[in-house]
Amino acid sequence: MTKVGIVGLGIMGGPMASNLLKAGFDVIGFDVVPASLERLAGEGGTKAVSAAQAAAESDVVITMLPNHPQVEAVALGEGGVLDSAKPGTLYIDMSSIRPETARRLAEVGAERGVRVLDAPVSGGEKGAIDGVLSIMVGGAAEDFAAAQPIFDVLGRTIVHVGPAGAGQTVKAANQLVVGGTYALVAEAIVLLEASGIDAGVGLDVLAGGLAGSRILELKRKSMVARQFAPGFRIDLHHKDMGIILDASRDAGVALPVGNLVAALIASARAQGYGQLDHSALLRVAENLSGKGDA
Amino acid sequence: MTKVGIVGLGIMGGPMASNLLKAGFDVIGFDVVPASLERLAGEGGTKAVSAAQAAAESDVVITMLPNHPQVEAVALGEGGVLDSAKPGTLYIDMSSIRPETARRLAEVGAERGVRVLDAPVSGGEKGAIDGVLSIMVGGAAEDFAAAQPIFDVLGRTIVHVGPAGAGQTVKAANQLVVGGTYALVAEAIVLLEASGIDAGVGLDVLAGGLAGSRILELKRKSMVARQFAPGFRIDLHHKDMGIILDASRDAGVALPVGNLVAALIASARAQGYGQLDHSALLRVAENLSGKGDA
Amino acid sequence: MTKVGIVGLGIMGGPMASNLLKAGFDVIGFDVVPASLERLAGEGGTKAVSAAQAAAESDVVITMLPNHPQVEAVALGEGGVLDSAKPGTLYIDMSSIRPETARRLAEVGAERGVRVLDAPVSGGEKGAIDGVLSIMVGGAAEDFAAAQPIFDVLGRTIVHVGPAGAGQTVKAANQLVVGGTYALVAEAIVLLEASGIDAGVGLDVLAGGLAGSRILELKRKSMVARQFAPGFRIDLHHKDMGIILDASRDAGVALPVGNLVAALIASARAQGYGQLDHSALLRVAENLSGKGDA
Amino acid sequence: MTKVGIVGLGIMGGPMASNLLKAGFDVIGFDVVPASLERLAGEGGTKAVSAAQAAAESDVVITMLPNHPQVEAVALGEGGVLDSAKPGTLYIDMSSIRPETARRLAEVGAERGVRVLDAPVSGGEKGAIDGVLSIMVGGAAEDFAAAQPIFDVLGRTIVHVGPAGAGQTVKAANQLVVGGTYALVAEAIVLLEASGIDAGVGLDVLAGGLAGSRILELKRKSMVARQFAPGFRIDLHHKDMGIILDASRDAGVALPVGNLVAALIASARAQGYGQLDHSALLRVAENLSGKGDA
Repeated sequence: MTKVGIVGLGIMGGPMASNLLKAGFDVIGFDVVPASLERLAGEGGTKAVSAAQAAAESDVVITMLPNHPQVEAVALGEGGVLDSAKPGTLYIDMSSIRPETARRLAEVGAERGVRVLDAPVSGGEKGAIDGVLSIMVGGAAEDFAAAQPIFDVLGRTIVHVGPAGAGQTVKAANQLVVGGTYALVAEAIVLLEASGIDAGVGLDVLAGGLAGSRILELKRKSMVARQFAPGFRIDLHHKDMGIILDASRDAGVALPVGNLVAALIASARAQGYGQLDHSALLRVAENLSGKGDA
Repeated sequence: MTKVGIVGLGIMGGPMASNLLKAGFDVIGFDVVPASLERLAGEGGTKAVSAAQAAAESDVVITMLPNHPQVEAVALGEGGVLDSAKPGTLYIDMSSIRPETARRLAEVGAERGVRVLDAPVSGGEKGAIDGVLSIMVGGAAEDFAAAQPIFDVLGRTIVHVGPAGAGQTVKAANQLVVGGTYALVAEAIVLLEASGIDAGVGLDVLAGGLAGSRILELKRKSMVARQFAPGFRIDLHHKDMGIILDASRDAGVALPVGNLVAALIASARAQGYGQLDHSALLRVAENLSGKGDA
Repeated sequence: MTKVGIVGLGIMGGPMASNLLKAGFDVIGFDVVPASLERLAGEGGTKAVSAAQAAAESDVVITMLPNHPQVEAVALGEGGVLDSAKPGTLYIDMSSIRPETARRLAEVGAERGVRVLDAPVSGGEKGAIDGVLSIMVGGAAEDFAAAQPIFDVLGRTIVHVGPAGAGQTVKAANQLVVGGTYALVAEAIVLLEASGIDAGVGLDVLAGGLAGSRILELKRKSMVARQFAPGFRIDLHHKDMGIILDASRDAGVALPVGNLVAALIASARAQGYGQLDHSALLRVAENLSGKGDA
Repeated sequence: MTKVGIVGLGIMGGPMASNLLKAGFDVIGFDVVPASLERLAGEGGTKAVSAAQAAAESDVVITMLPNHPQVEAVALGEGGVLDSAKPGTLYIDMSSIRPETARRLAEVGAERGVRVLDAPVSGGEKGAIDGVLSIMVGGAAEDFAAAQPIFDVLGRTIVHVGPAGAGQTVKAANQLVVGGTYALVAEAIVLLEASGIDAGVGLDVLAGGLAGSRILELKRKSMVARQFAPGFRIDLHHKDMGIILDASRDAGVALPVGNLVAALIASARAQGYGQLDHSALLRVAENLSGKGDA
């Protein structure tokens, strides 16, 4: 039976481990939070004393961590995942980090005989619990094939999008479009309301035509009602915009709209909306137009 | 039988007149282009010698003109539509113009006993021919009700969105979101391709998640293939962005993303892409990143 | 002796009329505000009953009005300045308006034998009172030469910058750079202060190097101290950004930074800072970063 | 006599070492490029075999390196400058890097008894050769005082702007204003020229008023003539914009204009202008408006 190591048992990694256990995988996990380890043990998993142990004793090792510094700390360097894993191990980083770091993991892995995939997800905590995440995978086709049984447990839409780093880049592109669409819908609401129009009625029209989007479909009512319970928090989208800024500089491209949207999401955070849903970008738009409560 | 006057028998107004004739309305039309008038006559309509005549002899008069200066010239002033129409006439301006002018038409109409609606459409030439336009209507509820039999012939999604000018504002909000979404998808494509990723594969993933939109659904393949046959031309979207700039200033709001997108669409036009589909905003994005043919 | 008509005797036109009187010109003026007319009479000028009279009885007629709709109302159409002025009259519009209207004034003037210059100014109320305005002049070289004795009374820096409309375009370019520089200095202050640095010390360094500017020289102390007594008000700069948006569309160019700055100045106004000095763009920058009092 | 170690003897560090030697300091230097070491030796300096040696044998050690990864590699970690320097050594990083790294250097220095200053410069190669750099210094007042004799040799405007990292933040703020001013002047030129105005004449007016700046003073003629010999290259300014993006995120502020300018400078680089002077931002502005040669 495949033995899976998981480093990072938080909001996302915890339910992913549960689902793997339920699916019959042998899971050994590590987290710096003891309670997360206990929960894993309670569900039938094995507690590791370090990321190194989780890596050393697994066929497949997964990291699910907040951002690139944590991934670099856990995966690179002496005693890290790549240093500790046996040759032939499949290492899947499912954190959302900058593509540059993903490519570096793959390079270091190649030197040590460890196969590496970058496989960031979207779908949030609920998607992790329900095992219906979207998974964007970068790396070699044969490694993607080898990981398929794992991905099948964790997600529903699973796409091999290109070589090392490509999963992270596609995730970045996704967050660029999502963040920008929120900004556009927010500006549309501000324009409609300031013109004396019921924004709900106006957005119904937009949702039915070429302006239509998943965001208008799912979020227009809550936005107009100023309900911003997360969902996906501004703080996390701010992190993702940082990845987009890094990725665009690495790729040598210029993204004027993306850069501006990054500033607006940074503004949402700076104005204290970090814990709200990313649709709270509406607060920034209305404050800019003197329409907010602030 | 209701007699309908139509001023402006071009790409949009021509097929609208045809559909009204087919539906049994008595149509009298005017256009400065003789061939358009001949076509109307060939289809059973009546040629007017002026906008004034078309207005004076109708129960409902429609204008379908390029922009606000043409509407102002035709509708306001001595011998214009509002001056010539009988009291009680229903005047529907279906052009896409700035909300300020729409409100002025309503005011002048009120002074002269003419009922006025602003009813811009989306759906383009094909929507006009097929009679499936989306129609966003501003004005009084009873006037909207009176116009319903006409709208039913011309469109499929017909929404009364608020008082005078509201139709134009909703149309402006629609074009803001549409233009901005193209800009975002364009930047996503540039980022993906510059990172060595097949943009088609990447956009497939985006289309299936929270980044999904009608534009990704309908246009991602043609954009990746650089097929920019219109569709809706950059030149027209540039006109619409001018309306958004005007409308936002009138409403006293600040739309940073909208303003930036207006600059990018202006750039598309300035770079010679005015006759291409608005998805050609991709050309601006790739030229900015040194990736275009230009 | 040259007889000068002035239409518009407000904050700018009033002191300009005074200076022309002091310099020995015969001045006939018109304004819709009776008190302004009385002041003119008290200083030795002649009150006209209409713009038409002021134009008809002068060798040189000047308009100094808020924006293009006022200029169009006063100068164009029946009984307007251009209709009433004698052939050979020199008509100088010193209002700040969009270049398109300036060019139209010149065209209509040409049809009627009236020589037209556009001559917007900078320097504000104080510059008008002290007769030290900067005057940017568009029109024919011989008309500029003919106006020189007038300009010499009103201003200090007087430049013929090109054909009809050129004065307005140069004024627009000036306001673009001024507004943008305020936005940049505002962002620099926000970055410095949020980093725990005394912004006054930091800006002293900037002022001494390649970042140095008249704005840093004159305004950095008041900006850091949050003293925003006008000076030149946000409301007026907002008007000027509208001119820039119009002018860039007419010229077929794309100004992404200009468009964004226009949104930020619109935001300043929407947030209630319209009566403050344009350096209050700092309020927008700090509110965006959650640092303001608002 | 104070012994000064210098790590990084390139375009900037090389002439700085020369000037310190001429001023009578005992200089030991290290660079990975042998020719740079030979030149130092030829001028009377001592060649070190490593950064560690240069640090270990000096009273004051200076690093002058391309960006933060190089500084981190040389200064942090085992065998780095901070590891090798004697307690009490004064370590001055004069590279332009992100403030976050500067603060980390100071923290690590404090743990090891090494006094640390961040002291980025402006003034370019010519300023380094002539010993007239502007130096912005962050760190403790007494360490600044101790470094004064060194700074007096290297620069002319020398300002202690705040605690650790403050030098880098002020440098970042400087580059934000400089880059943004170029973008504004570029857009002004595009607007003027597209309107048929001699941009040189128009900019003369701007330079004399509130829009005036050091950049207009020094660069307007070369910009209008499209002379872009560096000066300070786009590639370096692109690096600096990356520092600004990082610094603003660290400081928790939102800089919409700064972010947009970062995209435009990234565009300049992506379009192949990286080796031109930063005033070549004009190329981006004119290409956006379809006016370039490209």
